[in-house]
Amino acid sequence: MIKVGVLGATGAVGQRFIQILSEHPWFEITELLASERSAGKKYRDATKWLIETALPEDLKTMEVKLARPESLKNSDIELLFSAIPANIAKKTEVEFAEAGFTVASNAAAHRMDADVPLVIPEVNRDHLALIEVQQRKRGWDGCIITNPNCSTIVMTMTLKPLMQFGIKHVRVATMQAISGAGYTGLPAMAIHDNVIPFIGGEEGKMETEPLKILGELDGDVVKPANFKISASCHRVPVIDGHTEAIWVEFTSDPSVSEIKKAFYDFRREIESPTSPEMPIMVMEEEDRPQPRLDRDLGRGMTVSVGRIRADSMGLKYIAMGHNTIRGAVGASVLNAEVFAVERGIVK
Amino acid sequence: MIKVGVLGATGAVGQRFIQILSEHPWFEITELLASERSAGKKYRDATKWLIETALPEDLKTMEVKLARPESLKNSDIELLFSAIPANIAKKTEVEFAEAGFTVASNAAAHRMDADVPLVIPEVNRDHLALIEVQQRKRGWDGCIITNPNCSTIVMTMTLKPLMQFGIKHVRVATMQAISGAGYTGLPAMAIHDNVIPFIGGEEGKMETEPLKILGELDGDVVKPANFKISASCHRVPVIDGHTEAIWVEFTSDPSVSEIKKAFYDFRREIESPTSPEMPIMVMEEEDRPQPRLDRDLGRGMTVSVGRIRADSMGLKYIAMGHNTIRGAVGASVLNAEVFAVERGIVK
Amino acid sequence: MIKVGVLGATGAVGQRFIQILSEHPWFEITELLASERSAGKKYRDATKWLIETALPEDLKTMEVKLARPESLKNSDIELLFSAIPANIAKKTEVEFAEAGFTVASNAAAHRMDADVPLVIPEVNRDHLALIEVQQRKRGWDGCIITNPNCSTIVMTMTLKPLMQFGIKHVRVATMQAISGAGYTGLPAMAIHDNVIPFIGGEEGKMETEPLKILGELDGDVVKPANFKISASCHRVPVIDGHTEAIWVEFTSDPSVSEIKKAFYDFRREIESPTSPEMPIMVMEEEDRPQPRLDRDLGRGMTVSVGRIRADSMGLKYIAMGHNTIRGAVGASVLNAEVFAVERGIVK
Amino acid sequence: MIKVGVLGATGAVGQRFIQILSEHPWFEITELLASERSAGKKYRDATKWLIETALPEDLKTMEVKLARPESLKNSDIELLFSAIPANIAKKTEVEFAEAGFTVASNAAAHRMDADVPLVIPEVNRDHLALIEVQQRKRGWDGCIITNPNCSTIVMTMTLKPLMQFGIKHVRVATMQAISGAGYTGLPAMAIHDNVIPFIGGEEGKMETEPLKILGELDGDVVKPANFKISASCHRVPVIDGHTEAIWVEFTSDPSVSEIKKAFYDFRREIESPTSPEMPIMVMEEEDRPQPRLDRDLGRGMTVSVGRIRADSMGLKYIAMGHNTIRGAVGASVLNAEVFAVERGIVK
Repeated sequence: MIKVGVLGATGAVGQRFIQILSEHPWFEITELLASERSAGKKYRDATKWLIETALPEDLKTMEVKLARPESLKNSDIELLFSAIPANIAKKTEVEFAEAGFTVASNAAAHRMDADVPLVIPEVNRDHLALIEVQQRKRGWDGCIITNPNCSTIVMTMTLKPLMQFGIKHVRVATMQAISGAGYTGLPAMAIHDNVIPFIGGEEGKMETEPLKILGELDGDVVKPANFKISASCHRVPVIDGHTEAIWVEFTSDPSVSEIKKAFYDFRREIESPTSPEMPIMVMEEEDRPQPRLDRDLGRGMTVSVGRIRADSMGLKYIAMGHNTIRGAVGASVLNAEVFAVERGIVK
Repeated sequence: MIKVGVLGATGAVGQRFIQILSEHPWFEITELLASERSAGKKYRDATKWLIETALPEDLKTMEVKLARPESLKNSDIELLFSAIPANIAKKTEVEFAEAGFTVASNAAAHRMDADVPLVIPEVNRDHLALIEVQQRKRGWDGCIITNPNCSTIVMTMTLKPLMQFGIKHVRVATMQAISGAGYTGLPAMAIHDNVIPFIGGEEGKMETEPLKILGELDGDVVKPANFKISASCHRVPVIDGHTEAIWVEFTSDPSVSEIKKAFYDFRREIESPTSPEMPIMVMEEEDRPQPRLDRDLGRGMTVSVGRIRADSMGLKYIAMGHNTIRGAVGASVLNAEVFAVERGIVK
Repeated sequence: MIKVGVLGATGAVGQRFIQILSEHPWFEITELLASERSAGKKYRDATKWLIETALPEDLKTMEVKLARPESLKNSDIELLFSAIPANIAKKTEVEFAEAGFTVASNAAAHRMDADVPLVIPEVNRDHLALIEVQQRKRGWDGCIITNPNCSTIVMTMTLKPLMQFGIKHVRVATMQAISGAGYTGLPAMAIHDNVIPFIGGEEGKMETEPLKILGELDGDVVKPANFKISASCHRVPVIDGHTEAIWVEFTSDPSVSEIKKAFYDFRREIESPTSPEMPIMVMEEEDRPQPRLDRDLGRGMTVSVGRIRADSMGLKYIAMGHNTIRGAVGASVLNAEVFAVERGIVK
Repeated sequence: MIKVGVLGATGAVGQRFIQILSEHPWFEITELLASERSAGKKYRDATKWLIETALPEDLKTMEVKLARPESLKNSDIELLFSAIPANIAKKTEVEFAEAGFTVASNAAAHRMDADVPLVIPEVNRDHLALIEVQQRKRGWDGCIITNPNCSTIVMTMTLKPLMQFGIKHVRVATMQAISGAGYTGLPAMAIHDNVIPFIGGEEGKMETEPLKILGELDGDVVKPANFKISASCHRVPVIDGHTEAIWVEFTSDPSVSEIKKAFYDFRREIESPTSPEMPIMVMEEEDRPQPRLDRDLGRGMTVSVGRIRADSMGLKYIAMGHNTIRGAVGASVLNAEVFAVERGIVK
């Protein structure tokens, strides 16, 4: 087993990491780190567990350590998962990478740094090569690997197989789940029987992150993909699963059946525990995908697409994926798995 | 008071007509019509009243008549509101118009007939002139006046003031309320904690009706507006209020402040009880409009817009309106008011 | 017009007070008070307005003053409505009463004080006589008048007409709306697709407040009613309207029709703007009352009851009322109206 | 593997049976039966699959047969699960039992028949002895075994360990999930942002079924338990999981800790795939159990209890269980497992 730690273990994202990692066949949690408020406490006393499955017995009494590299001085972990908020991640993740740790981060803080890989393994696994650039330029032994924003992941996975047709423009309207706002991020009074047509910072992420991910690694840098994205982001009363209505204009003129074939043919390159057999599931029913029915496909790691149709203004379709699994915690874990395979940490 | 009747009085849309008309300063309900199942019964026994306000006392014991012109042989009503389903409306509305009645219809059946006005008074009141064409061609004394689909109305009202900038393309993603599906149209199991990315026939209506409404009356026909619309329609767990994310590309290059000014300057031409002082309300808050907070503006007749922003791909903004008031029953009543003013029925 | 002020004007309850009072035929808001964070600002800048109707124009620019009696030194208000949290109300309301103001409070802080009237006008208007006791004992010119907790009000109004049959035991299970927790009191993640079978402090209030309200004024004190209440309180995903399943055991053996008659015969003694013609509405349908359909009856001031049935274990029925109107803000305003009538402030 | 069939395979309950049975280590589905509308079709064409997990490959093309004993003339199934509505079950289940089949039924039709066992294995497994009475009296080779109503099961499992203290009276208020009404049983318009304080027939079932289940087998009959139950049943906007607020009065005076111990000590007698290790889970948190967080405990077969507290009017607590698993399909499957173990069908 590969020993791992969780940074920000007591928050909502941290709990989800713990749930997924505690059933993981390769990884074993041996370190839990959090802020001063929690440090020194037993995990069960430091957090209010709000996950649908029970808190694993052996973690209940594990001591939470302060989220500083010094806390891991005698630790033999090989990977650190970061579930801390972007504003704290900015500095803290750097400190851990500097101290020699490999940080698989779900935070937005370093995603757009030129030498930090922003990776969806099925899409741009080759960008992991940026790790060497990062270590060389910064003089680090450790490194930071990031996964994209939840809405970005769902859309970008479906854009990858369409790149062959020459993408010119993308427009996307999202219907995002409330879990994306964090446990206390959204009052019930705000979203009950309502739609909120605004999510702070989200449209900017959706308009920039995909271009880096779909860009080409060229020496030490990634040349961003050469098309434009316009996003409109909305919150709806759904607990998990982001639904996205996507329009694509192409430089070529692919038929709907060519598009479908491209989605069908899209496969993973590396098998690993979290990686789904079908990264994209094409649904033929006229009213699918739907978040409540389809979010758990591929144990939450499959993105489903449906309603693929074309008109004189290009292609339109629906994409849907589980925002806290494929869009967050599962994404970080999958990045770590692929990293572990490529580095030979897993035999 | 102008005496009016309601066709399809016992259904969900019929009940909403009754609620609105029973408080109306110009109109007085004197006839209730419905199918054989209800004909001959007292209204309170023929329907399960599901409106938030109480069923008006004087209507409780009014007899429901069969929805056939013969039932109104001795009636002195001047207007008939139609709340019947499209498939029945096809034939029934024609029978009543033929028999001399003015039918203000919310049904889709005749909306796209070349000689039937499809009207939003603030947008294309002049299309009411088609009534003469209709009567001349069909040899009728009566006529059919229609209002558009609920989603169409919300969008089209906001497109009208933008026509001056030269519209090239429109894309719209809707987040539609469950009341739009009718009282029993949607099982709770289908939409609870869910999004359904499909509404039968809706995208077609949104892609054609606005072009007729925004078209130019030229002799006996309406020349449709000359731009393209692509719609993606979705149901969300909200009781009332359709939210729409709209992208517009123009032939000119208006600034955001010119766009806002165009919305602000958009006013009604005829004052009437149902007509809102502000047909469009521009909201400056970054997270508005929202259906639960804003659907009742202008007693449900105001469409609110917000998040007006531009990028290299044109303009984007959010529009929201009450689907069963501005988008259905209120729309028919407003059409009837304007008709009554123009024909001098109201003094 | 009677000039009034609102203490805690910027919070969710304060906003609701402002909405109701700004349309009130007797009262005119001339003072807005809040904490240091808001003092000195214009009202529209001090609050995020989240009410479904627009913020009244004339209040937008009214200056918010610090919630201290000194702020009102030159003020000519005759009543002060208190919308502040219980922990702050403890001290602050006393300071204002001491300084000569009549405080109509929605806070729990002083409800159970022996010399403070806890009043539902239709139930125990005579308890307002405690004001003299309060002023005499405390040496105040002003006074504090309180209304009960939201769940208490709904149940207690229905218990009053049943007192004639001799109440022995009451059991109540509540299904309470999310607005009762305050705007930010409940994360969407906590209540979406969920029931929370616990509301802090609520059961205690429901088990004690009704006994004081239904008690008898005896000289300077209220002798509490002589029966027992056991409450189980639960939060459900409904925005407004508390539904309560109530069991009552009697010392006598009233029939269901006697019970219904008692509910029907229950009327207000004093007419005033907020007081509903029917304080209790008996519904005969087998599936009513329902919060979404019935909460706005009597402009939110009527409590509806239904499913009145008896078995060998006594009577059971459902009661439902609007928690933020009848259960909070409307309750305070109604208390103030009755006080104003009795003191001759209203002519 | 034990070969089994599903009666009513195409409905919502039938689909849930198929989901659970297709992953079952003992049972193998070899027959699917439904009404004339579906008979002769492939299963995937006869049903609209609405379960969160994919329809098992091998069942997609299995032919659906008409729900008549003749259809199974050459079949070697050993058990038949019945997911048909009560009104049809009345006659159809008898026909299959007469024809020699063992029918494990979730329908209400025969639950209260004197010679039909109404069983929750952890509670009254010994009642399965009624099968012999049933076969003897009716001259059948087959038999009917039933499980209780969903709300009954949740409550009755928690009453069993309390029987030792002498139960006098039980009052229960339910907050039931929408899935209990069947897929199309409840319009979204009825329950969105609402509570419906009525479920047809439910209170009667909750007031009678538990007395049979907790009764004593005495020769050929069950002597019902000797206490009274009063139920008030309500629907709330939750997809799965019935929450129940329960009051119990005892003839003795047990302490809260004795009650908790009784719950803790309650265990299964027979291990089987569907049977949970802990039939009852006691939760110590002040705000649990909650349906969204706790319904999947024990793969949906554990009933959780919490908020155990006492007052002068007896004990009160909250019970919660998954209504379509523990309360329906899982209950039938567990009955079949225990039957199979007792009859030696499973080795």
